[in-house]
Amino acid sequence: MTNSVHDEIADQTPRRQVARRTGRRPGQSGTREAILAAAQRQFARLGYDRTSIRAVAAEAGVDQKLVTHYFGSKQQLFVAAVELPVAPADLAAILTGNQRKLGERLARYVILELLDRPDARNSMTGVIRAAASEPEAARMVRELLMREIWSPAAELLGSDNAELRVTLLASQLFGLIMARCIVAAEPLASLPGERLAAAIAPTLHHYLTGPI
Amino acid sequence: MTNSVHDEIADQTPRRQVARRTGRRPGQSGTREAILAAAQRQFARLGYDRTSIRAVAAEAGVDQKLVTHYFGSKQQLFVAAVELPVAPADLAAILTGNQRKLGERLARYVILELLDRPDARNSMTGVIRAAASEPEAARMVRELLMREIWSPAAELLGSDNAELRVTLLASQLFGLIMARCIVAAEPLASLPGERLAAAIAPTLHHYLTGPI
Repeated sequence: MTNSVHDEIADQTPRRQVARRTGRRPGQSGTREAILAAAQRQFARLGYDRTSIRAVAAEAGVDQKLVTHYFGSKQQLFVAAVELPVAPADLAAILTGNQRKLGERLARYVILELLDRPDARNSMTGVIRAAASEPEAARMVRELLMREIWSPAAELLGSDNAELRVTLLASQLFGLIMARCIVAAEPLASLPGERLAAAIAPTLHHYLTGPI
Repeated sequence: MTNSVHDEIADQTPRRQVARRTGRRPGQSGTREAILAAAQRQFARLGYDRTSIRAVAAEAGVDQKLVTHYFGSKQQLFVAAVELPVAPADLAAILTGNQRKLGERLARYVILELLDRPDARNSMTGVIRAAASEPEAARMVRELLMREIWSPAAELLGSDNAELRVTLLASQLFGLIMARCIVAAEPLASLPGERLAAAIAPTLHHYLTGPI
């Protein structure tokens, strides 16, 4: 019985897919697109720290000034280029499945499918680090998350205070990224993912379904 | 009865005091101390963003290169200079009072006495922003929090898994600072402090006393 419960949860946890945002930037020039594509390749290859505006410009074959003209800072370029590793289908599968297991399913997805996978972890920590760097990047992160995750999630929930519930969830998830991946607060940072998911599941369940 | 419960909690919530860390840096030179003192004044007066290594050097009356020699980056200078707005007496009052109200008392303290007071908020957001900026600053933040808050708090708790409980708490509190003060995720960011404290109290209570 214990195993079948775990299998059930594993079955309900969607495989991580990368969200594609086709058609998101209408009217943009070929130059802007070339810069974005070069930035995506470099951030993926080198990570957030070792990517520079100069190297992105060189890879895109444009002058460095054009990169700052279109995107401002490296942080803003990152937020414009990042593909959040959360697909709409994942959100729907998590939030509309068996309601009794909501917190558990979401906790397992966030820890096992996002934070503990290197590519998704790099995207998530990059988003946090960009947001913390400067107000303009923070604004862009807020709009990105609102558009791609918070609004669709609130709509899927459809409950009282859905928007507040979603941002309470976000607060715990922001903090998990900080504590586990950026500050590396021990013993949380090295705790096996399954155990960490079990520890935070009641929190996520409370935010999604409890009195707030 | 409702009022008396609130009064009781208010009475149990210690007034915020600024921790003094006297004698923390033995053997440091007068130059290093002068730089730190100038940095503390400037960060307090101008905030994190508008403080520069150049202006700190000028105020301390030393060459800018000496500031980077002693402290590396502006982020590291900030972490060295910051006085965490959490006094040991506050921690003890919160963690050793009525155990049934632990989560509620801690939530009210964090929201009402730290995040919603401009000076304490500036310290806390500066710590998060420094930690997110570069690995060396993240390491310094980890050691600062471990020494000043996490270790004493785990000792005060004295329960099973106390260190893990404390870092789980830290994860929610990191994320609250991100969501309320840095990313400004609405409606959480504008929620009245009393209401936000009530929403997160069960989470903090779970991390402090629940099965994890």
